[in-house]
Amino acid sequence: MNFEFEGNLKKLKAVWYENNEVVMIDQRMLPEKVEFYRAKNSQDIAYSIKEMVVRGAPAIGIAAAWGLAMAKSNHEDMDAATKLIGSTRPTAFDLFKAIKFMISNNFTVEAARRYSQEITNRCRKIGEYGDNLIPHKAKILTHCNAGALAVTEWGTALAPIRIAAHNGKDIFVFVDETRPRLQGSKLTAWELQNEGISHAVIADNAAGHFMHTKQVDLAIVGADRITASGDFANKIGTYEKAVVAHENDVPFFVAAPASTFDFSLNSGDDIPIEERGEEEVLSIAGKRIAPEKSRAMNPAFDVTPAKYVTAFITEYGIFKPNELKSLKSMIQKDMFMRED
Amino acid sequence: MNFEFEGNLKKLKAVWYENNEVVMIDQRMLPEKVEFYRAKNSQDIAYSIKEMVVRGAPAIGIAAAWGLAMAKSNHEDMDAATKLIGSTRPTAFDLFKAIKFMISNNFTVEAARRYSQEITNRCRKIGEYGDNLIPHKAKILTHCNAGALAVTEWGTALAPIRIAAHNGKDIFVFVDETRPRLQGSKLTAWELQNEGISHAVIADNAAGHFMHTKQVDLAIVGADRITASGDFANKIGTYEKAVVAHENDVPFFVAAPASTFDFSLNSGDDIPIEERGEEEVLSIAGKRIAPEKSRAMNPAFDVTPAKYVTAFITEYGIFKPNELKSLKSMIQKDMFMRED
Repeated sequence: MNFEFEGNLKKLKAVWYENNEVVMIDQRMLPEKVEFYRAKNSQDIAYSIKEMVVRGAPAIGIAAAWGLAMAKSNHEDMDAATKLIGSTRPTAFDLFKAIKFMISNNFTVEAARRYSQEITNRCRKIGEYGDNLIPHKAKILTHCNAGALAVTEWGTALAPIRIAAHNGKDIFVFVDETRPRLQGSKLTAWELQNEGISHAVIADNAAGHFMHTKQVDLAIVGADRITASGDFANKIGTYEKAVVAHENDVPFFVAAPASTFDFSLNSGDDIPIEERGEEEVLSIAGKRIAPEKSRAMNPAFDVTPAKYVTAFITEYGIFKPNELKSLKSMIQKDMFMRED
Repeated sequence: MNFEFEGNLKKLKAVWYENNEVVMIDQRMLPEKVEFYRAKNSQDIAYSIKEMVVRGAPAIGIAAAWGLAMAKSNHEDMDAATKLIGSTRPTAFDLFKAIKFMISNNFTVEAARRYSQEITNRCRKIGEYGDNLIPHKAKILTHCNAGALAVTEWGTALAPIRIAAHNGKDIFVFVDETRPRLQGSKLTAWELQNEGISHAVIADNAAGHFMHTKQVDLAIVGADRITASGDFANKIGTYEKAVVAHENDVPFFVAAPASTFDFSLNSGDDIPIEERGEEEVLSIAGKRIAPEKSRAMNPAFDVTPAKYVTAFITEYGIFKPNELKSLKSMIQKDMFMRED
């Protein structure tokens, strides 16, 4: 992805491997500062995923893949490393996909490189397919950050938006700020600004208003896990936006590579939902907002039933929820993605 | 309302008149500090409404009524004072209702006192009627602050919750934090904590998840303006919550006194919606969140169509949207509320 650094536009990945370290943009610092976190062992990788130095389902998978390769070349106990990294965050399926892939490929650096490149290339294809869904002058709603920061480049939900903009379509993005962690306001707005794509940050509460008043042409979000039925988990608030989009006939698209599809589950009710700390809700930017004794509840994800999804944008093309069987058979024929 | 001050529980109103000044809790400082703002003339009143020292439709009306009485006794130009106070915020109907009432009653202090007492008593009645809708052990969702701070005592949406709790019902409140200004997290949580009512603050994004997973028994919100058809304006995000409540068969109640009903409008599309500054979205607690060049859009209210409303809780009883004609005729017979 592009980013502006001391007045110059630079190319940057969200996660990469260098000198036996996994290097990542420390996403907790954005948009204020571009700082890098260097993971030197599996503990660092677990910390970086759990504390959201790196976040976004595909990027979590990529960080895990590189992390396991690094652990192996450090002669770590691989059972322990695998278990530790696998216990960081329960919802994003890419994490488990990446771990499985690395186990099947003996944790080699070459396998991690392949995993990272595959996922990145697949996201570019998501962008190309998704671009076809974006008319000239489209106004697009997105939630959370499913951008380059959530993959390494391109993004999932932001890949079609990037490519539509690069193809000269005059588009505008409504960026849900995405409380509690504000990934929209901090990360998506940062990516769009660096790419020169027109956007406005909105309170999550305002998304419904803009849909109801016909200011939104389509919505595109990412996913953390998609089941065989098309029910999917994504950042908390996605469910509300999908219901309101459906009510207002706003097409609602979910962009994700094969690594996010968990065909072992049918119903979204079976996806484990991570609960995060109360402080994310009760305080903002280190400042307590709520009264001292008030408590909070903080589910990090919600589940959106398939009936609210217009289509899934994947590297194999566009699939309606009732077409996921054919996606499944394509994935089973895919040397890289199939489950052996 | 009760509030804890230096370890003691005190009784307090949100707005009152004292020594020819309109005194109000400075709601911008809560929950950190209980400070009072003393308005000495109509400019101060206009400032206090516009800058949200005082907010909530009924409390805005009460502050305006007291303000006009004060302006009159200060021998201000009453045309100018009326115009100034009437131009502060466009959406809440109570402001215009209060101004009309004060014009009809020669801006006397007695009239302002009567207005304030009437609205407060009517909110207590809302609480009594609304209590009947709240089962023992109910889990209730509310949005923004429609509490004592938004009236002077009791509140609108919080009046039934207060009375249910006082009547010994073991209830629990999901408090939407209510971005961008966080009135839920700051004000509603503060009121509930002071009353000892069990609650949790949630990100606005999480309300849908809790409704979808059947953790919410009913929702009660306030209103800024209700039209003859039952379409109503309230804090941004109300529309989303109402649509999702409807989708999940969660009863959705709107609590408001007659002063919030604008029978001159039929459709919610005709309610003017205030746009507030971008900074409310781009910064929190004085700290910039979004990238420097990013812009925001910030509608302060949205309109919820009548079809999503289970019933309106008023001082005359409970009315379904299709029963508002009978409410209108009751209001027309009401000496205090009728429009002459």
